[in-house]
Amino acid sequence: MDELVGSVGRRKVEFSTKSKKLDEKPLIVSRWKERWMRCSIESWFHLPKPLRKAEREDWMHDGTFHEAVRGILTLAQLFSVMPVCGIHSKDPRKLRLSYTSFRAFYAYFCALGISFLTAMSVFFFASKRYNFQKMVTAFFYCYNLYGMYRFWKLAKSWPGLMVKWTHVDDSLPTQRNEFDRAILAHRIKVCSILVMTLSLSEHLLSIVAAVHFSNNCPAVHDPYEAFFKSNFAFVYYYFRYSALRGFLTKFFNVICNYIWSYVDLFVIVVSMGLSHSFRRMNHYLLQHKREKMTEKFWGEQRQRYRNVCDLVSIVDDHVSVITMLSISNNLFFICVQILNSLNSRPTFVHTVYFWFNLIILIGRTLAVAMFAAEVNDESKRPIEVLRTIPREGWCLEAKRFAEEVTTDTVALTGLKFFNMTRKLVLNVTGAIITYELVLIQFHKDETSDIDLCKLKRMDTL
Amino acid sequence: MDELVGSVGRRKVEFSTKSKKLDEKPLIVSRWKERWMRCSIESWFHLPKPLRKAEREDWMHDGTFHEAVRGILTLAQLFSVMPVCGIHSKDPRKLRLSYTSFRAFYAYFCALGISFLTAMSVFFFASKRYNFQKMVTAFFYCYNLYGMYRFWKLAKSWPGLMVKWTHVDDSLPTQRNEFDRAILAHRIKVCSILVMTLSLSEHLLSIVAAVHFSNNCPAVHDPYEAFFKSNFAFVYYYFRYSALRGFLTKFFNVICNYIWSYVDLFVIVVSMGLSHSFRRMNHYLLQHKREKMTEKFWGEQRQRYRNVCDLVSIVDDHVSVITMLSISNNLFFICVQILNSLNSRPTFVHTVYFWFNLIILIGRTLAVAMFAAEVNDESKRPIEVLRTIPREGWCLEAKRFAEEVTTDTVALTGLKFFNMTRKLVLNVTGAIITYELVLIQFHKDETSDIDLCKLKRMDTL
Amino acid sequence: MDELVGSVGRRKVEFSTKSKKLDEKPLIVSRWKERWMRCSIESWFHLPKPLRKAEREDWMHDGTFHEAVRGILTLAQLFSVMPVCGIHSKDPRKLRLSYTSFRAFYAYFCALGISFLTAMSVFFFASKRYNFQKMVTAFFYCYNLYGMYRFWKLAKSWPGLMVKWTHVDDSLPTQRNEFDRAILAHRIKVCSILVMTLSLSEHLLSIVAAVHFSNNCPAVHDPYEAFFKSNFAFVYYYFRYSALRGFLTKFFNVICNYIWSYVDLFVIVVSMGLSHSFRRMNHYLLQHKREKMTEKFWGEQRQRYRNVCDLVSIVDDHVSVITMLSISNNLFFICVQILNSLNSRPTFVHTVYFWFNLIILIGRTLAVAMFAAEVNDESKRPIEVLRTIPREGWCLEAKRFAEEVTTDTVALTGLKFFNMTRKLVLNVTGAIITYELVLIQFHKDETSDIDLCKLKRMDTL
Amino acid sequence: MDELVGSVGRRKVEFSTKSKKLDEKPLIVSRWKERWMRCSIESWFHLPKPLRKAEREDWMHDGTFHEAVRGILTLAQLFSVMPVCGIHSKDPRKLRLSYTSFRAFYAYFCALGISFLTAMSVFFFASKRYNFQKMVTAFFYCYNLYGMYRFWKLAKSWPGLMVKWTHVDDSLPTQRNEFDRAILAHRIKVCSILVMTLSLSEHLLSIVAAVHFSNNCPAVHDPYEAFFKSNFAFVYYYFRYSALRGFLTKFFNVICNYIWSYVDLFVIVVSMGLSHSFRRMNHYLLQHKREKMTEKFWGEQRQRYRNVCDLVSIVDDHVSVITMLSISNNLFFICVQILNSLNSRPTFVHTVYFWFNLIILIGRTLAVAMFAAEVNDESKRPIEVLRTIPREGWCLEAKRFAEEVTTDTVALTGLKFFNMTRKLVLNVTGAIITYELVLIQFHKDETSDIDLCKLKRMDTL
Repeated sequence: MDELVGSVGRRKVEFSTKSKKLDEKPLIVSRWKERWMRCSIESWFHLPKPLRKAEREDWMHDGTFHEAVRGILTLAQLFSVMPVCGIHSKDPRKLRLSYTSFRAFYAYFCALGISFLTAMSVFFFASKRYNFQKMVTAFFYCYNLYGMYRFWKLAKSWPGLMVKWTHVDDSLPTQRNEFDRAILAHRIKVCSILVMTLSLSEHLLSIVAAVHFSNNCPAVHDPYEAFFKSNFAFVYYYFRYSALRGFLTKFFNVICNYIWSYVDLFVIVVSMGLSHSFRRMNHYLLQHKREKMTEKFWGEQRQRYRNVCDLVSIVDDHVSVITMLSISNNLFFICVQILNSLNSRPTFVHTVYFWFNLIILIGRTLAVAMFAAEVNDESKRPIEVLRTIPREGWCLEAKRFAEEVTTDTVALTGLKFFNMTRKLVLNVTGAIITYELVLIQFHKDETSDIDLCKLKRMDTL
Repeated sequence: MDELVGSVGRRKVEFSTKSKKLDEKPLIVSRWKERWMRCSIESWFHLPKPLRKAEREDWMHDGTFHEAVRGILTLAQLFSVMPVCGIHSKDPRKLRLSYTSFRAFYAYFCALGISFLTAMSVFFFASKRYNFQKMVTAFFYCYNLYGMYRFWKLAKSWPGLMVKWTHVDDSLPTQRNEFDRAILAHRIKVCSILVMTLSLSEHLLSIVAAVHFSNNCPAVHDPYEAFFKSNFAFVYYYFRYSALRGFLTKFFNVICNYIWSYVDLFVIVVSMGLSHSFRRMNHYLLQHKREKMTEKFWGEQRQRYRNVCDLVSIVDDHVSVITMLSISNNLFFICVQILNSLNSRPTFVHTVYFWFNLIILIGRTLAVAMFAAEVNDESKRPIEVLRTIPREGWCLEAKRFAEEVTTDTVALTGLKFFNMTRKLVLNVTGAIITYELVLIQFHKDETSDIDLCKLKRMDTL
Repeated sequence: MDELVGSVGRRKVEFSTKSKKLDEKPLIVSRWKERWMRCSIESWFHLPKPLRKAEREDWMHDGTFHEAVRGILTLAQLFSVMPVCGIHSKDPRKLRLSYTSFRAFYAYFCALGISFLTAMSVFFFASKRYNFQKMVTAFFYCYNLYGMYRFWKLAKSWPGLMVKWTHVDDSLPTQRNEFDRAILAHRIKVCSILVMTLSLSEHLLSIVAAVHFSNNCPAVHDPYEAFFKSNFAFVYYYFRYSALRGFLTKFFNVICNYIWSYVDLFVIVVSMGLSHSFRRMNHYLLQHKREKMTEKFWGEQRQRYRNVCDLVSIVDDHVSVITMLSISNNLFFICVQILNSLNSRPTFVHTVYFWFNLIILIGRTLAVAMFAAEVNDESKRPIEVLRTIPREGWCLEAKRFAEEVTTDTVALTGLKFFNMTRKLVLNVTGAIITYELVLIQFHKDETSDIDLCKLKRMDTL
Repeated sequence: MDELVGSVGRRKVEFSTKSKKLDEKPLIVSRWKERWMRCSIESWFHLPKPLRKAEREDWMHDGTFHEAVRGILTLAQLFSVMPVCGIHSKDPRKLRLSYTSFRAFYAYFCALGISFLTAMSVFFFASKRYNFQKMVTAFFYCYNLYGMYRFWKLAKSWPGLMVKWTHVDDSLPTQRNEFDRAILAHRIKVCSILVMTLSLSEHLLSIVAAVHFSNNCPAVHDPYEAFFKSNFAFVYYYFRYSALRGFLTKFFNVICNYIWSYVDLFVIVVSMGLSHSFRRMNHYLLQHKREKMTEKFWGEQRQRYRNVCDLVSIVDDHVSVITMLSISNNLFFICVQILNSLNSRPTFVHTVYFWFNLIILIGRTLAVAMFAAEVNDESKRPIEVLRTIPREGWCLEAKRFAEEVTTDTVALTGLKFFNMTRKLVLNVTGAIITYELVLIQFHKDETSDIDLCKLKRMDTL
C-alpha cells in the first residue's frame, strides 16, 4: 500500500496517519465508551439537528461514497431502516450502531408492529383454505420483516464498511474540481428521488383504487372502516376495528411499502458508488492511452484496481443477501402480476393501477439489474487502455493487470449464485417475455373469433 | 500509429497529412460555415446529378466501405432514411448532415406522415377494446417511427464514422488489383438487390392479398376505397376517404415497409464491411503462415488488428440500437406469424402470402444473425496463423496478439446485451423451433383421429 | 514430491517410509493371505468390538479424512452398504474388501432381498396396464439396487483411495492443534446426524400415514396385514401374507430407504472432505497474503494444490456415478412430488407427510449441490492471495499457479457431464421453480372465481 | 515439420519421400489420365475381387485410419454410398472418385430411384390436406436424398482427406506392436456391426409390424400388394401396382433406411478415428509425466498436437454438414416418436416395434454425441501432463502448449454452430426429458382417477 503514497491526493497524508491508527484501532477503542455515552445521550435528547444554519463547508463535497449516501440513509431512518448514528459526520469513523439510541428504539417499535402484521397474515393464510392472494400478502410481510432484519445486520457492519470504502476512495486518483466531487452525490440524489416518487405515487394510487373499491362494497358504511377492513382483513377478521388501530396498521403498512422500494434503491445506490470508483480509475487511465508508462506506474494502477475489486468483494459479502432479496422478490411479484393480468379488473382505476404497478415493477427490476451490471461493465474497461500500450511500454505489471482484468469477474452477486451482469438483464427480460408469451398464447383463443370483414388483418400490415 | 507508415500502401502519405489535419480539425471547422452554405444551396437547387456522364474513374474502386455503401445509401435516401449529403464523393470528409437540405426536408415530411399514422394506429388500438391485430399494427408503426429516428441520429455521426472507417481501411494491407477492391462493393450490391427484391415482392403480394380480400367484402363498392379502408381502418374510421389521402397513406405505408426491411439490410451491410476488413487482414497474415517473422512485424499486425477491433467497437456504439431493433422486431413478428399459423386463412392467396411472409421473415432474421456473426468468426481467424509460428519466431508481441485474439470477444452487439455470434443464431433457431413445437403439440389432437386402414403409418416410414 | 519434505509435519517422516513401501507394495502383498485369514476369521467370530474401553488415543484426531468418515461408514455397514474391513484402524492401508467376511455375507443377503423386491415391482408394473405410481415404485427399487451395486464397486477401490487421500492429507500444511484436527470429523458427524434424523422421521411419518390410511380401508381386518398389503401390493398380489414375510419386506424396504438417503449423505461427506483439504491449503496461503515469497515457496504450494486437484479428479472418477445417481434421483422424485401436489390428499396426516417429504427432498438436493459446489469454491480461493503478490515477488511459479487456478475447473462432476458448482444449484432451483410455476398456472383457474366483496385483493397489498 | 523426422517411426523415411512428391504432386498428375483409364476399365470389368486368397500381409495392420475404415466403406458402397475407388489399397493416394466406374453408375441408379420416391412423397404430402404423418414420410425421403448428395460431395474430397490423415497418423508416435495397430480397426468393426445389426433388426421388425397391420386390413387380398400399398401409398395412389415395382420401391426404401443409419455410423467412425489419434499422442505424453524434458521435446509435441488439431478442423470442414444432419434428424424423429407415444398402438407388435424404435433412436443419438464428444475430451488430456512439469522443466514451448490446450476448443461441430462436447450430450438429454415431462403432465389427468383403496400410493414408497 505504501507504494501509493506518492500518487494519492490531498487528504492522503492526513488520512494515512489516521488509517494506521485505524488498523491498530487504539483511537476508536479507547474512546469507545465515552463516545457511546455521548452518542446515546445525544440521540435521546437531540434529534438530528435539521435546523442548524448551513455553512459553506456543508455544500462542499469531498467525493466519498459515505458523504454521498447520507441523504438516502436519513430518509431510510425516517422509516426505521438502518438506524446508524453519525451518518451526517464527515468522518466515517464516527459512524456506529447504538442499541439504545432513539433511532434504535424507533426501529424496535416498527419491527414489533411489522412482526405482528406478519404473524397475522401468515396465520390468516395457514388457517383458511388455500388462497393465492392470501399467500401473496403473507409473503409480502414476511419479505419485509426479513428485509428489515437484514438491514439491521448490515447496520452493524456499516461503520467498518464505510471506513474501508473511504480508504479506497482516497487511494483513487484525486478529483480536481468541486463538480467532479459532487457528481456522485448528485446522481444518487436524482435517482433516489425518482425511485421514491414513483413508489409513492404507486402507493397512493393503490390507496385510491382500494378506496374506490371499498366504496363500491355496500356492506360497511364508514368509508375508513371499509377501507381498513378490506385492506387488512387478516387483522380485522380477528380484532375489532378502531381508528387508532387503523392508523397503526396503515403506518406499518406504509413502512413495509417503503422497505419494499428501499431494498431496490439500496442496491442501486451501492452499485452507483462502486461503479463510480471504477469510473474514476478508468478516467485516469484513459488519459494515458497509447502512452509508454513505467512498470512502477502499472504496478500502482494494478494495486489501485485491486483495491477497488477487493472493495466490491467485501461490499458484496454484506450486500449479496439484499441483492438476492431484491431480484427474487421483484421476479416473484412480476410473475404474480402477469398471472393476475388474465383476471378482469373490477373498475377502471384498478386497471390503471394494475398497469402502472406492473410497469413500475418491471422498470425497477431492470434498473436494479442495469445499475448493478454497470459495476461489472466498468471493471472491464481498463482493458481498452491496456490493449493500446505500445510494444516498448509492455511490462510484467501491465501483463498482470491485463490478465486480472480479463480473467476475474468483478461484480455484485445474488448470494454468490449469479453475477449481476448485463447477461443477467437479458436472461431476466427473456424469462419475463417467455412467461408472458406462454400466457398470451393460452389466452389468445378467446379473441380470435372476429368478423371476417371487420378484421384488420395483421398479414398485410 | 506511426509504426505503420512503412507497411501501409499507396494513399497513405497523402492521407496521413490529411488525417493530421483531421485530428486537429481546423480545416473542417474553419470552412464549416462556407461549406454549409454551399451544401444547402446545392441541395436546394441541384438534385443529386444522376445524369452526369460516367467517367472511367467512376468505375474504379478504392476498396473503402464508404465507397461500397453509396449505392444503398442513395436508395435509402429515396425513402427518406439517413439524409446525409456527400455520399457520392470519394472523400468521406465531404460527408455531412445538413438540417436544411432538400433531403432533410423530404425526411421531415415523411417523418410527419408516419408520425400521423403512428398516432392514429396507437389511438385506434387504445380507444377500442383489446385486439391483438390492432396491437401489432400499432407496434409496426411505432417501430418504424423509432427506426427513422435512430437513423436520423446515426446520420449525425455518420460522417465522423466514415472518416474513421476510411482511416482504418487505409491502414490495412493494400489490395493489389481492381478485382480485390471491387469485391466488397459487389457483394454489398448483390446482397442489397436480393433483400430488396424479396421485400418488394412480399409487399406486392400483401397488396394482392389485400385487394383480393377487400373485393370479397361486398360492403364497399369502389375497389380502391375498399382496399384503403380495410388496410388503413385506423385512419378512415376517423377521417373521410379521398383519393389523395389514400395515396398519401399508402405512400407512407410503403416507406414504413421499406424502413422495416432497411433496418435488417443496414445491419447486414455494416457487418459485411467489418468482416471484410478482418478478411483483408487475415488474407495478409495467412501468407506468412508457418514463417518466422520479426517482433516488429507482429507488433504492426497486432496494431492493425487492434485498429479494426476499435472500429468494430466504435461502429457498434452507433449501430447496436439498430441491431437490437432488427433482431427484436424480427423475433416479435415471427412469434406473431407462428401464432397466426394456427388460424385458417380466408383465401388461397392469403395462404401463399402467409407462408412467403414467414419464410422471408425467418430468412432475413437468420441472414442478419449470420452476417453479423461473420464479424466475430473472422476476428478469431488470426489465431490459426499465430498457432503455427515456429519456436524461434515466437515473441512477446506474437504472444500479446494471440492473447488478445483468444480473450477478447469482437462482435457487433444488440445494445451490448448479447453478442452477435454463431451461438446466437443457434439459440434463435432453437427458440423458434421450440415455440413451433409447443404449438404443434397443442394443435395436434385435432388431426390424430384418422381412419385406421387409411392411416399412412409413420412407424414404418 | 521430495521438495515438500521440509514443510510437511509431524508424521511425515514416518509416513514417507511407509509410502515408499506402499509404492512397492511388498508389505501388503506378502502378508496379504495371512491378513485375509485373520480378517475373515475375525469378522466371523468377532463383531466390531464396540465395548472395548476407550483410551485417550481414541479421542485424539489426526485430522485425516479416513479417520473422519469411520462413523458414517460404520452406520452404513449396519445397513449392508460398503462392507469394507478395517475402517476403525488408524492406518488406511489396513482397509480391504473381503468377499467372505460377515459383512460381505450380510450384504449378499440384503442384495438378494432387494433384488427380489425389485423384480416383483418391475413385474407388477410391466404386467398390468400403465400406472404412474407403479412406475415410481419400480424405479425406487431399481435405483436402490443399482446404488447398492455402485457402493460395492466403490468398496473395492476404497482402500486404495483412502491410502491416496491420506497421502495427500499428509502433504498439506500441518494442523497445529487438536481442535483443527477434530473439526472435519465433527462437521461430518453433525451433518450425518442431521440428514439421518430427518430421513428417519420422514420414514416414520410415512409409516404413520400408511397405517392411518390402511386403517381407513375396511376390506382387511388385521391392521398389520392391511398395512403390508397396501404398502407392498406388488409382493402380496402374488404371494400369501405371513408375519415373517411382512417383517422381511419391511426390513428390506427400510434398507432401501436408508440407501436412498445414504447416497446423498455420501456425496455430502466426500465433498466436505475435499473442500476441507482445500481449506487447509487456503488457510496456510492466506497467512502469506501480500508477502514476497521465494519462487521455491510458490513451486511447493503449486505442487500441493496440484496434489489436491489430482485427488479431486481421482475421487471423482470413483464417485461421479454416485453423484449423478443422487442428483438425477432427487430431481426425479421432486418432479413426481410436484406432479402429485395437484392431487388432493385423503387425510391430514398425508398432507403433513407430503409437504414434509417435499421439503426434505428439496433441502437434501440443495444440500448435496451446495456442499459439492463448495469444493469448487474453495479451489478458486488461492487466487485471492496470488493477486496480492507484490511486484518484486511475482515469479514464474506464481504465474503458473495463478494460471492453473483461473483456468482449470476443479469440481466433482455428475458422470463428467456437469460440474457441481454454484451455478448448478441455481439452475436446479430455477428448473424446479419453473416447473412449479407452470403447474400453478394450469391449476390457477379453479381458484380465481371469488366473491368480489370478500376478495382480499393482492393489488393493494 | 522436419523437426519431427527424428522421433517419427519405421515408415517415416519411406513416406517422407513420398509426401514430398505428394506436395509437388507431379507423380499423381502425370499419371492421372492413364490411371483413370485403368480404373474405369477395371471397375467396368472387374468387380472388387473378394475371392483373392488372403495373404499374411492382409492381416497385418499399419494402424492408419484409412485402413481401419475400408470395411465399413465397402459395406456403404453395397448401398451405393460414397463410391470411391481404391479403398482396399494400402496407399491412400490410390483413392479417387471416378464418375464412370461401375460403383458410380450404381449410385446414379439408386439416386434416381430415391429421387423418384422423394418427389412422389413430397407431391403426395403437398397435394392433399395437411397430415403430420405424410410430412414425416416426405421429410424422411428428402433427408436421405440430401444425405446421399452430401456423401457424394464428401467422396470427391475423400482421397485428399485420407492422404492428409495418413500423413498426420505417420507423424504421431509409433505404435510398437501389432495389437496397438489393430485396435482402431477392431473397435470400428465391433461398433459398426453393433449399429448395423440393431438397425437391421429394427427395420425387419418394422416390416413384421407392417405385414401384421396390412393383413388386418381386409380391403386388399394379395398380402404382398396389401403390404406395398399400405407402405408406399404415395406411389401406388398414382401408379398401378406390379411385383417388379413393388420390389424396386422396397429396394430403394431399404437403401434409404441404410443411409439413415449410416449417417450416424459415419460420424461415430470418424470421431473414433480422430480421438484415436489424440489417444496415441496422450499415451506417449503420459510416459513423460512429471519428467523434465527439453524445450525441443515440447516444441515437437506441440507441433504434433497442432497437426492433429488441424486434422480435426479439416475433417470437420467436410463432415460438419453430415454431423448436423445426423443430430438434427435424430432429434426430429425422437420428437415425432415422443409425440406418437401418446397415440394408442393398434397391435402388440406395433407396441414392441414402437418402443424398440424409440430406444434405438435415443441410443444412436447418444452414441453419436458421446463418440464425437470423446474427440474433445481426448484433446484436453495433454494438460494433465503439462500441469505436472517440474519447475526447472517449464519452458516457453510447454507454456504455449498449455495455453493452446486450455484455450482452444478442438471438436467436431454441427455446421460450426455447436461443438460436439459432453455438454451437448447433457443438453440434448435434458431437452428430450423436458419434452417428455411436459407431455406426461398433459397426459396425466386421465390416469389420476383411481379408486382410493386400490391406490398404490407413491407417497409411502
